[in-house]
Amino acid sequence: MKVSKYLDSKPVQELPGVVKREVVNADDGAPNYCMRVFEVEPGSATLFHTHAWEHEVFVLDGQGLAVSEQGETQISRDSVVFVPPDEQHCFKNNGDEILRFICVIPYQ
Amino acid sequence: MKVSKYLDSKPVQELPGVVKREVVNADDGAPNYCMRVFEVEPGSATLFHTHAWEHEVFVLDGQGLAVSEQGETQISRDSVVFVPPDEQHCFKNNGDEILRFICVIPYQ
Repeated sequence: MKVSKYLDSKPVQELPGVVKREVVNADDGAPNYCMRVFEVEPGSATLFHTHAWEHEVFVLDGQGLAVSEQGETQISRDSVVFVPPDEQHCFKNNGDEILRFICVIPYQ
Repeated sequence: MKVSKYLDSKPVQELPGVVKREVVNADDGAPNYCMRVFEVEPGSATLFHTHAWEHEVFVLDGQGLAVSEQGETQISRDSVVFVPPDEQHCFKNNGDEILRFICVIPYQ
């Protein structure tokens, strides 16, 4: 068993205003999927993109928009987002504090 | 894309003092793994057990202990726990408010 705090994991600047931490990954011996924590600054967003794998997202803090080709949905603490494979998506911070969320992805 | 609040998902009483919600599962079209949210009342615990699959856990609120055969580690908001396959484990609430955590498991 590995117990840590998410801030112990190395931050990676994904984009301007977007920091990612892999809090559980293959280095821990995780065989199937990776748990990441994202911090998105006010006014910033993750890339609007698509890929062949899903996301399972849980919002920890802040306010934002879950964006797909179908439109935008407001998200906040305790929101859950499932992005199916091959669906365009991004997450925008439209609030005035950090938007922080967990995002789990499978290994390819 | 499915957007919800975790309280929208049906609560299941796993044990006395332990409620589970599957916030993303196969019914949503999730192909690989299931995201659950657990609420453990003060003084209660999940079952001390083992299985062939891993857990990836993120603590949302409260105070508790992550227990394995190697001992107990204090956990709280923003703690991350990786339980490898085949390791005995449980989560105990040793605080005075609800211990709430995300736990992701693969489909078998």
